[in-house]
Amino acid sequence: MSQRLLINASLATLANNGTPYGLIEEGILALDGGKIAWIGKVADLPAAYQNWERQDLAGRLVTPGLIDCHTHVVFGGNRAREFEMRLEGATYEEVARAGGGIVSTVKATRSASEEDLLDQALIRVDALIAEGVTALEIKSGYGLDLDTELRMLRVARKIGSVRPVHVRTSFLGAHAVPAEFKNRPDAYIDEVCLPALEAANAEGLVDAVDGFCEGIAFSPKQIDRVFDKARRLGLPVKLHAEQLSNLGGAALAASYGALSADHLEYLDEAGAMALAESGSVAVLLPGAFYTLRETRQPPLDLLRQEKVPIALATDCNPGSSPLASILLTLNMGCTLFRMTPEEALAGVTREAARALGLDDQGTLEVGKRADLNVWNVSHPAELSYRIGFNALHDRIFGGSE
Amino acid sequence: MSQRLLINASLATLANNGTPYGLIEEGILALDGGKIAWIGKVADLPAAYQNWERQDLAGRLVTPGLIDCHTHVVFGGNRAREFEMRLEGATYEEVARAGGGIVSTVKATRSASEEDLLDQALIRVDALIAEGVTALEIKSGYGLDLDTELRMLRVARKIGSVRPVHVRTSFLGAHAVPAEFKNRPDAYIDEVCLPALEAANAEGLVDAVDGFCEGIAFSPKQIDRVFDKARRLGLPVKLHAEQLSNLGGAALAASYGALSADHLEYLDEAGAMALAESGSVAVLLPGAFYTLRETRQPPLDLLRQEKVPIALATDCNPGSSPLASILLTLNMGCTLFRMTPEEALAGVTREAARALGLDDQGTLEVGKRADLNVWNVSHPAELSYRIGFNALHDRIFGGSE
Ligand SMILES: [Zn+2]
Ligand SMILES: [Zn+2]
Repeated sequence: MSQRLLINASLATLANNGTPYGLIEEGILALDGGKIAWIGKVADLPAAYQNWERQDLAGRLVTPGLIDCHTHVVFGGNRAREFEMRLEGATYEEVARAGGGIVSTVKATRSASEEDLLDQALIRVDALIAEGVTALEIKSGYGLDLDTELRMLRVARKIGSVRPVHVRTSFLGAHAVPAEFKNRPDAYIDEVCLPALEAANAEGLVDAVDGFCEGIAFSPKQIDRVFDKARRLGLPVKLHAEQLSNLGGAALAASYGALSADHLEYLDEAGAMALAESGSVAVLLPGAFYTLRETRQPPLDLLRQEKVPIALATDCNPGSSPLASILLTLNMGCTLFRMTPEEALAGVTREAARALGLDDQGTLEVGKRADLNVWNVSHPAELSYRIGFNALHDRIFGGSE
Repeated sequence: MSQRLLINASLATLANNGTPYGLIEEGILALDGGKIAWIGKVADLPAAYQNWERQDLAGRLVTPGLIDCHTHVVFGGNRAREFEMRLEGATYEEVARAGGGIVSTVKATRSASEEDLLDQALIRVDALIAEGVTALEIKSGYGLDLDTELRMLRVARKIGSVRPVHVRTSFLGAHAVPAEFKNRPDAYIDEVCLPALEAANAEGLVDAVDGFCEGIAFSPKQIDRVFDKARRLGLPVKLHAEQLSNLGGAALAASYGALSADHLEYLDEAGAMALAESGSVAVLLPGAFYTLRETRQPPLDLLRQEKVPIALATDCNPGSSPLASILLTLNMGCTLFRMTPEEALAGVTREAARALGLDDQGTLEVGKRADLNVWNVSHPAELSYRIGFNALHDRIFGGSE
């Protein structure tokens, strides 16, 4: 690796250079170790780089590495049988009686060893890597007890050390109220969530703190207490907000300067303005919208109008989004949410990096990491247009294949 | 290959043995050359097979090879730019003025060489093969002139000779009225469609005859003339019917004993009864439903009630379904159309074979071809449950990997 030129490339830089996709046709990218040293038109290549080794990309498209900024890839078991029961006409009650729902994932996760959780998560992470993912966020939230929450986060960290991918962890103790705290959410927050957050943070396992603000999960008041602890620990926050109803979660997250507010189908104007003000990213999750057969789309025009940055992620999880494809997520963002292909691609690169606070990734610019993909397509819109097809030709992580 | 046992397998035979999926747990499959010689429980294995070479599948799931019974994988160009224009707010008129729509695919297909068409189609076919597809149907219909229709079918035939996959061809001259016959569909049928069918058949390129019966394509009367010619040539028929409206296409197809009627969102009771009577398969195409954001689902309960066999296919095409994943099609059949995972899997195996008139495929039964897949899953519902994930462990075609 050390020093080389990628020549004869179409570069979708996603940088703000005034062209759609930040596109540079007939471009050259100079990689110096793990960084981008120069980028531009072939005619403009400085003399200093002329003698570097050249790799001809035959006109292929290059994009930044893809970033999946919202996943729950660490969990035990799967919910295929529940999926089947529902389609066979079972009611939610019958599914619950058969042990289905998030309860079943919590049970399977609690009983899985660290090694098991790692093995199972790697299957999903490898599928994402095979599509050009170079960074992903991974949440806890299926333990709901101190030991398992920490175990999930250790597995998440481990993934980043056994695979060529950056991992950002989010502590999601406030994901659901476990059975043993039924109807006592505040006691759960006090006795489990906050102590687990403190312990996880002490072990260096937490990059951000997340919560699920919804009627079926936690109230804004409860989330506020979790975020307050995060602030005291110096950790950034993010929130599952306005997915099924509007509880003002986005504004709450914004008031803490959140990295992102995620889902947002029910976001209103005040919430969008609050996100714009705080610079928080709106993370849209079409896989859950698709799986749950929702009909209310996130307010894309409002987000555009308020200039809220928009990211897009798989939400890979065993219940509401068993989706392990970032490319399909691009198509769903366009087809289901009516994003443009440019917005969709920015949503899994530049804006996803922003949602994770990763300053050195997400665009092809001088000084950024050499995390990038070479695609067998000639125009970036093809990445969103195709469904269930992986056109990845080559993936470069930190300058190396 | 010659003779071997696949042991320690969970066999989703899709045969009618009284269990869901025709499942045989702790099963053994005896492969003799390219055929299935024996199938059953380990305890029942006859002495004659005891000494055959054994391959331990470690409890993995085995299914028949998957069959994609409705595709348009042979075409020139792509329609990514049109996809993008629409999402950027362009009207249909503006797209048409920019050369979009099926016209652009016809243009690109006409100008592509046989070699180009083959190279481009193989990318899509290889994606299907990588997901365990062992047979697929391929239609003409983007030439709309004699030369190009025949060239498309030659490419389709060629695919079956350069890849380990069965190809069944369908002549789809009655797909659209080309620009040069604008407002003269009957003249197109007389001067191009029927002569091209005759020529293609004389060259041995036609396994079935298809048409598109819709307000924007051909009337039942015009389709009737094409089917009449098919009958005189001794070729089976199938039809794109009741996708956007109800013109009685299913009943028309049934009156010719069609292999299948495809799409069927607007099918009514009379149409369903006609299909049941004729033994025609209802082929559902959720990829087009998804891409076109249709809201009217095919009448699944009616099809069940009338006991119409139901298949499921990608409809892989550059416009309304740029979908190259049979596994995602399973999930879409369940999520969007509310099929059960068992119906979905039967729809891409047993019923898809029936829709193509392939008697020797589609189930794991003695005497059938040894076209089968080994999956890294423990229950067949997992194949439909996951989204954008390929759990294929091994694909066996005619007894060989
Ligand atoms: Zn989530
Ligand atoms: Zn079709």
